[in-house]
Amino acid sequence: MSLDEFGLIERIRRRTGARADIVLGIGDDAALLQPAPGQQLVVTTDTLNIGVHFPAETPAADIGWKALAVNLSDLAAMGATPAWCSLSLSLPDASAQWVDEFAQGFFALADLHGIALIGGDTTRGPLSISITAMGQVAAGQALRRDGAQPGDDIWVSGVPGEAGLALALWQQKVLDVSRVADDSAHEHLRLRLARPTPRVELGRALRGVATAAVDVSDGLLADLGHICARSGVAADVLENALPASAAAQQCALSAAFNALRASAGDDYELCFTAPQAQRQALHETMASVAVPLTRIGYIRAGTGLQVINQEGGVVVLSKQGYNHFAGIGK
Amino acid sequence: MSLDEFGLIERIRRRTGARADIVLGIGDDAALLQPAPGQQLVVTTDTLNIGVHFPAETPAADIGWKALAVNLSDLAAMGATPAWCSLSLSLPDASAQWVDEFAQGFFALADLHGIALIGGDTTRGPLSISITAMGQVAAGQALRRDGAQPGDDIWVSGVPGEAGLALALWQQKVLDVSRVADDSAHEHLRLRLARPTPRVELGRALRGVATAAVDVSDGLLADLGHICARSGVAADVLENALPASAAAQQCALSAAFNALRASAGDDYELCFTAPQAQRQALHETMASVAVPLTRIGYIRAGTGLQVINQEGGVVVLSKQGYNHFAGIGK
Repeated sequence: MSLDEFGLIERIRRRTGARADIVLGIGDDAALLQPAPGQQLVVTTDTLNIGVHFPAETPAADIGWKALAVNLSDLAAMGATPAWCSLSLSLPDASAQWVDEFAQGFFALADLHGIALIGGDTTRGPLSISITAMGQVAAGQALRRDGAQPGDDIWVSGVPGEAGLALALWQQKVLDVSRVADDSAHEHLRLRLARPTPRVELGRALRGVATAAVDVSDGLLADLGHICARSGVAADVLENALPASAAAQQCALSAAFNALRASAGDDYELCFTAPQAQRQALHETMASVAVPLTRIGYIRAGTGLQVINQEGGVVVLSKQGYNHFAGIGK
Repeated sequence: MSLDEFGLIERIRRRTGARADIVLGIGDDAALLQPAPGQQLVVTTDTLNIGVHFPAETPAADIGWKALAVNLSDLAAMGATPAWCSLSLSLPDASAQWVDEFAQGFFALADLHGIALIGGDTTRGPLSISITAMGQVAAGQALRRDGAQPGDDIWVSGVPGEAGLALALWQQKVLDVSRVADDSAHEHLRLRLARPTPRVELGRALRGVATAAVDVSDGLLADLGHICARSGVAADVLENALPASAAAQQCALSAAFNALRASAGDDYELCFTAPQAQRQALHETMASVAVPLTRIGYIRAGTGLQVINQEGGVVVLSKQGYNHFAGIGK
């Protein structure tokens, strides 16, 4: 079944959730929203293109999930509570089945976080999904990149590098992104790439605790580098402290994982800084949001970022992040 | 000169304007904005794809202008005051010259309306521009599609159909969209397609005057049909009352124009309804915002929409609007 533009919009609209602060949702020239008093608005936009941000064979439901996840991850890094989003969907043709599967993945994640779709656009063109997500945070409470202080600890959530390992396995035709893997370790890795978990609850819990935060989308060191640049500080990362991947170990891929974990993108974990006095509070946060947090280094005065190995030497890294103009399509 | 993703963002960022309500602009995980107290938020998203929404030979500056214009037009139709926007730009390659020209057109219009770019995304892919524009309007003051009442007049701004005529002339290779036309009438038509004027001032002036409003993006009758459907009313449009095009007349194209004016899209005029008691007020509005307003029919009880010719007969129209899945690329 093929759809026209209006059939496609209707198919998506009927899935969207309700919120009391939506005065007018999809169906007018624009959405009309009632921001909460005393809150600031947090706005982010991220686009996923076929062949650049996901392999062509990625299931529609995974694309729907991930397109929203990367935006929720930005809200998480600001400590914001998700509220509304708009979706611009370019499709080469409008298959009802594809749209329904896309919507299934998209709304599965949207409903988890109470974010409502309030508008958007559907156009004909190569597959591309652009989402603008809006959240709210009390004035002065947002997490920013520019607050890191010398002496702060550097923390990271989860296990950055697993998504990059899954991507490498797909490129080597070891992992099929389009179906469930045969064993749980490979499936864990596949889901880290296909269905990243935005750390929304963690971001909210870090308000008043973290001094700076960023989400790990371009690579751990590249994104930590953004904190350093904006805060005017330097970072020492202890190679030995970087989280290990149990899944990589089970797949006998620890060496490959270790080569990727500081530089691979697409994990959507949070990297943040916090005073040493917050260590106990962060251990409690870890338990309450059920996300592993690892202390991986410290902030010092100066500029730049270095990785220090077990012997105290500085590790030289050839690639410190992911540039979307170099994309996976190459 | 070719750019990487970060060079491209920097090239756009340095052009963007300032606003006191931007707590954090481009450069963090998300923008942080301070909505004005008592205001509601108006949000719209529109995407333009090469070959679908504009010919491939369109100059970059015109693409930049138009991509923002179609979004400002939606804010205008809500009576909103533009505030902030985000830009997602997919480019097949990142040429510094192309980006500078795009930014020139984009910011020329942005600066006219005081809308600031607060974030976005640049990715590699076929040329596509997705913008989310945000505006503000006092609670309860937004223009909507659902307020038309039987007995209301139907009004339209400007001369819908001129953009459609320009598109037809381009398709017939009479008009070159990539350069200034030889005579002023053809140039007028070209600019109606390439540089539409969002009716932002008019939209704001219609608050408290119009009962319903829509922007003419898909075609006059198609968009008026949205008002009828949402308001639960019918519309009679007087064919004879539809605005004539002086430019079309100068080009000896009145017949072609008349065949298009009720159905062609892309004009970004406002179509709205208002009580007869507002006629004098609307003549004053017309003078104050310097946009022609034409009364083209009336709302009555019932459903549907008909065009009535000079003899009182009902005109049958074969095409009532523009479906983006049928696009100009076909």
